Amino acid sequence: MKIREVVITPIAFADPPLLNSAGVHEPWALRSIIEVVTEDGVSGLGESYGDQGHLDLLNAVAPRLAGLDVFATNALRARVCDVLGGTSNPDKHGLTGQITAEGTVDRVFSPFEVACLDVQGKILGRPVSDLLGGAVRSEVPYSAYLFYKWAGHPGAPDDEWGEAVTPDGIVAQARKMIGEYGFGSIKLKGGVFPPEQEIEAIRALREAFPDHPLRIDPNAAWSTETSVRVAGELAGVLEYFEDPTPSIPGMAEVAAKVDIPLATNMCVVAFEHLAESVALDAVQVILSDHHYWGGLNRSRELAAICRTFGIGLSMHSNSHLGISLAAMTHLAAATPNLGYACDTHYPWNAADDVVVPGVLSFVDGAVPVPTTPGLGVELDRDKLARLHENYLNCGIRQRDDTGYMQRFEPSYERKRPRW
Amino acid sequence: MKIREVVITPIAFADPPLLNSAGVHEPWALRSIIEVVTEDGVSGLGESYGDQGHLDLLNAVAPRLAGLDVFATNALRARVCDVLGGTSNPDKHGLTGQITAEGTVDRVFSPFEVACLDVQGKILGRPVSDLLGGAVRSEVPYSAYLFYKWAGHPGAPDDEWGEAVTPDGIVAQARKMIGEYGFGSIKLKGGVFPPEQEIEAIRALREAFPDHPLRIDPNAAWSTETSVRVAGELAGVLEYFEDPTPSIPGMAEVAAKVDIPLATNMCVVAFEHLAESVALDAVQVILSDHHYWGGLNRSRELAAICRTFGIGLSMHSNSHLGISLAAMTHLAAATPNLGYACDTHYPWNAADDVVVPGVLSFVDGAVPVPTTPGLGVELDRDKLARLHENYLNCGIRQRDDTGYMQRFEPSYERKRPRW
Ligand SMILES: [Mg+2]
Ligand SMILES: [Mg+2]
Repeated sequence: MKIREVVITPIAFADPPLLNSAGVHEPWALRSIIEVVTEDGVSGLGESYGDQGHLDLLNAVAPRLAGLDVFATNALRARVCDVLGGTSNPDKHGLTGQITAEGTVDRVFSPFEVACLDVQGKILGRPVSDLLGGAVRSEVPYSAYLFYKWAGHPGAPDDEWGEAVTPDGIVAQARKMIGEYGFGSIKLKGGVFPPEQEIEAIRALREAFPDHPLRIDPNAAWSTETSVRVAGELAGVLEYFEDPTPSIPGMAEVAAKVDIPLATNMCVVAFEHLAESVALDAVQVILSDHHYWGGLNRSRELAAICRTFGIGLSMHSNSHLGISLAAMTHLAAATPNLGYACDTHYPWNAADDVVVPGVLSFVDGAVPVPTTPGLGVELDRDKLARLHENYLNCGIRQRDDTGYMQRFEPSYERKRPRW
Repeated sequence: MKIREVVITPIAFADPPLLNSAGVHEPWALRSIIEVVTEDGVSGLGESYGDQGHLDLLNAVAPRLAGLDVFATNALRARVCDVLGGTSNPDKHGLTGQITAEGTVDRVFSPFEVACLDVQGKILGRPVSDLLGGAVRSEVPYSAYLFYKWAGHPGAPDDEWGEAVTPDGIVAQARKMIGEYGFGSIKLKGGVFPPEQEIEAIRALREAFPDHPLRIDPNAAWSTETSVRVAGELAGVLEYFEDPTPSIPGMAEVAAKVDIPLATNMCVVAFEHLAESVALDAVQVILSDHHYWGGLNRSRELAAICRTFGIGLSMHSNSHLGISLAAMTHLAAATPNLGYACDTHYPWNAADDVVVPGVLSFVDGAVPVPTTPGLGVELDRDKLARLHENYLNCGIRQRDDTGYMQRFEPSYERKRPRW
């Protein structure tokens, strides 16, 4: 069952003006759709980043995969290594930490591995979760991922979510999102306003949703001192405290002084970061993400490391569509020690999904694990063409939250920590 | 593809009088053969320990597996946990360290997982290595596993290997084994004679085989002081130095003082041991063994941990037959960071194998990875019946190298460290 060809289609989909510590989301989010087609015409899907630097690497690798067996994922990763020859891809949007050479291989390898697993599942007539030891839960809980946001992109009409720049606005957003999706956990993307205001938002959420586990993620916007102070204010309120401050040593310094588990998807984002983090007990929860941890099987290796070293395991998300959601759901379903509701941006981007509707749904805040062969999702070709058209026309080639913010606030500076 | 039944057959096969730091091998080695049969009549094979305590656990679990899907190995492990309810199984023969509760689950789970993978491979028409990401090598190198030994069991005729109780005897054994199998690496089981004599044996092997990597494994027979002294004498001669002394802190103390990588299959034998070992940098090489690391997928998790924490990876063996050899070979073939020739007792027991001959062979010291579906091996039913007959008649129910030694040397004491 050899690979005949690999097709990579960059796409862009509408994204609301979500605020974070680096700026604000642009009107278009980039992504790439990967199709691996075998000599017998079976095709499998993957979804990955769409930034130019990453696309260049995907495109460099793709033609070199023809002839490989879809079961030979070890050989496929070696091939990716070969092609990239130790390249490292500096992370421009900066929300997921410093990328190492091995981390670059893992990012590029990931969508090809997922697509190969999709093919394997189709051949076998089994869902991808069965290729990972089988689902241990029939639905995967996700969290309500709240953002401070503008009412709409400047110059465009307000979007359906409206403005959220105050504690009340955040609570209203939570009510709408939980009303529609039924989420049982809440995450607030912070690092946007001064810490006092964000603490106030968390307290307002606690009052409005007394039983929902709560998290805040300021994306390293705070100094270690500020982080320790905020942790003191929110002790007993937060489930975990995500990336308050930059770097493994910085997180370790905070961890030593606070009672809340620290979580990260910024300072531990590749296997090379784990030894230092474990040695310093810098983080107590790792947010896995198959897109940069090298696909589904390597994410299971990360899960084993977390289990072995007493580290909690949650799941990270960037703006994504249904192929990623399906892969995340299969992986989470087959990972026994995944102990938290997973993050997802899906509610912000669902309207523009590239897969045929119907398979992925949220029931009480959880996605039922697809039981059809492979990932269980199918490309909507018209939609794909339309999203590719968006890509060609949108002019964005590299995510740049900071530059976009500066168009409206010229004095805005990217600064980490900011407070 | 659900499990209909699981059949466990205890067997005994002839074993030569191999000496080690706990005594001497009895005339019969015990093992269990596991058959997992699906509702459609597809059957898969596993091989495990045959000691009574372990058999009791296997037999307690087996009837509880009916109805589980062969792909649901996560659920299968949870079922094993359930049945054992945290039981821990003290390790009686003592060559593989202290067994934890989690380690007991992993030992019991392992042969069922391997048998399920065998079934999966057969259904899919793919070798087991393909279920592990695919072989990265087409043959797996093994090492010549040398033992001090008596000429034959007391009261029985000499065996074909003859006596080896001197450096010359060991070199002669190496010549015979390497002559027949072509091994390119050599391991000497030590801890039998005073260290000076075993150092002399290693030096004799170095002279006779100048290009073969050499290892010695005294099974924790030496104090930390003796271990450091031996390491000084053998620096530059040994590839790695296996379990010179007991316990993680003991190994750490030696590791801090010597230049040779320390290896273990005694102090790090379960996931629960890894955090302490990593923290103390106690060992630089771990000998994996799917029989106690929880099967092939969990052994891959161990491999990922070794890769991540900069620990070398080799492979351990107990006395075993062809089902184990096939599983070891598939696993080793699909583990990119396996950096050493694997251990195997196979030359000592090959004559009594329970699988149909022809699939497994040694070519230049390596086993070509089977490419037929599943493990690629088939049970010889007549042989199985004969080996089960041996089991019923041999009277041994628990490996006891020390007790057997004491029958001939009543003053023999088990002592660790001895020197
Ligand atoms: Mg985050
Ligand atoms: Mg050993």
